Amino acid sequence: MMITRVRSAVSSIIGGIMASGSSAQEIHPNPPPRFPYSRPDFLALSPDEVECSADHISRPILILKEMKLPWATGYAEVINAGKSTLNEDQACCEVVELRKRPADPSSPSYTPTRRRSSLPSADVLESIDSTEVKELNFHHWALFDGHGGSGAAVFAAKFLHLHIEEQLQEVLEILQNPTLQPPTCLGEENPVHHLHPSAGCSQRGLSRAASLRGAAGAPGSPNTMAPRFFMEKKIKQESLVVGAIENAFKEMDAHIARERMVYSISGGCTALVVVYLLGKLYVANAGDSRALIIRGGEILPMSSSFTPDSERQRLQFLAHLQPSLLGNDFTHLEFPRRVTKKEVGKRMLYRDFSMNGWAYKTVQEEDLKFPLIFGEGKKARVLATIGITRGLGNHDLKVHDSDIAIKPFLSCSPEVKIYNLSQYEHSADDVMILATDGLWDVLSNQEVAEAVSGFLGNCDPDDQHRYTMAAQDLVMKARGVLRDRGWRIAGDRLGSGDDISVFIIPLMHGNSQQPQPS
Amino acid sequence: MMITRVRSAVSSIIGGIMASGSSAQEIHPNPPPRFPYSRPDFLALSPDEVECSADHISRPILILKEMKLPWATGYAEVINAGKSTLNEDQACCEVVELRKRPADPSSPSYTPTRRRSSLPSADVLESIDSTEVKELNFHHWALFDGHGGSGAAVFAAKFLHLHIEEQLQEVLEILQNPTLQPPTCLGEENPVHHLHPSAGCSQRGLSRAASLRGAAGAPGSPNTMAPRFFMEKKIKQESLVVGAIENAFKEMDAHIARERMVYSISGGCTALVVVYLLGKLYVANAGDSRALIIRGGEILPMSSSFTPDSERQRLQFLAHLQPSLLGNDFTHLEFPRRVTKKEVGKRMLYRDFSMNGWAYKTVQEEDLKFPLIFGEGKKARVLATIGITRGLGNHDLKVHDSDIAIKPFLSCSPEVKIYNLSQYEHSADDVMILATDGLWDVLSNQEVAEAVSGFLGNCDPDDQHRYTMAAQDLVMKARGVLRDRGWRIAGDRLGSGDDISVFIIPLMHGNSQQPQPS
Repeated sequence: MMITRVRSAVSSIIGGIMASGSSAQEIHPNPPPRFPYSRPDFLALSPDEVECSADHISRPILILKEMKLPWATGYAEVINAGKSTLNEDQACCEVVELRKRPADPSSPSYTPTRRRSSLPSADVLESIDSTEVKELNFHHWALFDGHGGSGAAVFAAKFLHLHIEEQLQEVLEILQNPTLQPPTCLGEENPVHHLHPSAGCSQRGLSRAASLRGAAGAPGSPNTMAPRFFMEKKIKQESLVVGAIENAFKEMDAHIARERMVYSISGGCTALVVVYLLGKLYVANAGDSRALIIRGGEILPMSSSFTPDSERQRLQFLAHLQPSLLGNDFTHLEFPRRVTKKEVGKRMLYRDFSMNGWAYKTVQEEDLKFPLIFGEGKKARVLATIGITRGLGNHDLKVHDSDIAIKPFLSCSPEVKIYNLSQYEHSADDVMILATDGLWDVLSNQEVAEAVSGFLGNCDPDDQHRYTMAAQDLVMKARGVLRDRGWRIAGDRLGSGDDISVFIIPLMHGNSQQPQPS
Repeated sequence: MMITRVRSAVSSIIGGIMASGSSAQEIHPNPPPRFPYSRPDFLALSPDEVECSADHISRPILILKEMKLPWATGYAEVINAGKSTLNEDQACCEVVELRKRPADPSSPSYTPTRRRSSLPSADVLESIDSTEVKELNFHHWALFDGHGGSGAAVFAAKFLHLHIEEQLQEVLEILQNPTLQPPTCLGEENPVHHLHPSAGCSQRGLSRAASLRGAAGAPGSPNTMAPRFFMEKKIKQESLVVGAIENAFKEMDAHIARERMVYSISGGCTALVVVYLLGKLYVANAGDSRALIIRGGEILPMSSSFTPDSERQRLQFLAHLQPSLLGNDFTHLEFPRRVTKKEVGKRMLYRDFSMNGWAYKTVQEEDLKFPLIFGEGKKARVLATIGITRGLGNHDLKVHDSDIAIKPFLSCSPEVKIYNLSQYEHSADDVMILATDGLWDVLSNQEVAEAVSGFLGNCDPDDQHRYTMAAQDLVMKARGVLRDRGWRIAGDRLGSGDDISVFIIPLMHGNSQQPQPS
């Protein structure tokens, strides 16, 4: 039997937190907080420096100093102008090794009930000699924008890459053979399988007979419709990476849900993550941070924002299907403003979940309830409470003074976009920019692209600090300067009073990466 | 009191069908079928010609002959190669007048419980003198692609434009004053309103005080959050047209649901509708027909297709929230193919509603159920039954040999895209093409654009029949010629065996239209 049990990095860390060598089932009654507030590890700040960075009056811009990040990535950040005591943004940048780990049942963190990766059986993956399996690594950059506390953002910055690692482990041997189409089914060796290759697990569309047999019992499939059940969908390798990242976000969110039973993990956070693996950049976004690529002066948006505005219809649809989620206080209909009591019986503009346009309806008593989605643009809120609709955490968030939970309306699923880095030539000025909404609230994509291109064009191309300097310049342009009791930027506009964090990732460096570095 | 009761065209027709002068509540017990199968009115075919057109062997291409359609629109169609006895496509082209109709309570079709349009009160719409109100008309082109019978398509072709008319009537006086921002609230005259202009209905953001008062009772709004409740969304005129079209689709679907209690209305249909009103084209699509614009040789897609593939996540989400809709026979998870019994316990690729990528899961007994969405591309089906996910009708459609209804998964809501015709100059070769999937299954957007541009370039620009000739050419290119017992098109590919219907609308003619023709 050819099975490999993967002991994941996450499970060993959870083992460490939860059990310190004893059974993972025992929960420590009064654990000390394990992750105090801090700034990103790679800034390597002393406790004094962390304290100084939180000065809401001077708002010092922190930049990467001695430490070099992979690909010479640049980074800069600044705290908000007083909207929260701490900087609720967090960042992470890691190179994570994916390696086949031997199972060790004697290890205290060995948990036989955890999911394990089953390898394809030998005849299915005949082209892979497991003794020759190479290691893979992936690069990981992430920004987390916290709200209602810094706990979830700090926690996610420590763990999300490990959850991604765990999910990728499960498909590691398939990814190591990029020419192989992912097998539809993975199983233990099966004698029947050897005798009848097409009757058991199948791949590469070999299993027409098996599929047909399976389909024969399909409900509602008269014989004349049978041919359409012959097919088998072809799944691409990159879809496994996307699925791994999607499930890692889910696991991360469930991890926060579990750990909050033991620790206080305050608030929630958005997450914007870039994974570089096998020549491709995967940009996963849940929330309103933003990623874009500047290539040859051209702007390629690499994320969409998930806000009450952009996700109105999903949320209204959910509330329409499960009205009890709204308690007695909210209506799933949208109105241009609050309805007043004296307007009952008159006709008012509204939108339902299936509409993008507006129409008039006669106002009922029911419509006096507060709308599920209310406000416009940056001021839009779900249940009068939260301005983003995707992210991690917020498990205990309720509508003020009520029992109405916000979480069912939030999604922890990212949208993942793929950029095939190895397909293009990149110059030293081609970069991906990741930033929290503090930047994008005051600068447009165009302004950011011009600022970065302008700045990099004036730098020595060999200066390894140019990307951090460009990030600093961006943060400066968005924060502005303190004048007449307010932060002002170019054009006498208001500067951003929010936390701002910026990664600038040069894409040229990706080209020099081995597709499978060992 | 300044109220106008609008007797809509639809309600008078319903009155005719349902009641013939008596109460609309009485339902005729055994009415004769009112709409027998036919081809579009504007083809003006004799019964003999209708019969000849249904020849599945010769598949004659029908074109517009004497009758001229508005804007010199071209039209051609052909029946399928035998997949259904009748041509299940239908088409409609009308210019519909929107006029204020006086209410007449003594009329047999006056139905006081129907929705009526309330005009804005005098002080709100001070700039409109109601004695000077002009009439408006709109142009309407529509294609309906039926399935499971021709009833729904025939019915929708007769009524949808009247439902659009009814919905537009309700906002007619607002549309007639294009510079006016639609009032948030319409109401009867209210003395309080006169005394305190900002306290009652409001428009143009004048009612900050009123909005604030309304918001004061908002649940979960601590005082610090109050400012965001001051705002009032600004709604554009064109959003009212979009909302009217969206609601017209809903009313059309409800109309079919009602009438099927009295008549047999077989099957369902997709709907692709273009409305021209006040200088703009509104393209509303529910299903897999397609609209595109060719302007200066450039292709502008004007619709998206709604299929099990494109709407997988919406359907999976619904099934996840309301699993009873699946009976005991289906699972909302997607697998690349059917799962077989001997694969229980092995690991198989799957996707859930929140995923775009794929991951492996351990197969459970539960996963042996048939997937809600199954198949790929044109062969994808919802509940093993239907290949489109939006449209009209299908109220009685069930999974074969079961009680599982398909309708909850289908949406009658169109997606509406807007093209601001008056903003561009158009040449005689700039057109909008509408066609059912019979065309797009075998020809790409690019091939269609090249065929049409090539054809029109060889025509006399003054020939009013050139657009019909171009439509005929397209249908010919997609149907092909009968050779070796099969229909073949260029490149020795298979021709379309489906019904094919094509409108070609020259855009230049829109420019010469008055924005408000009387």
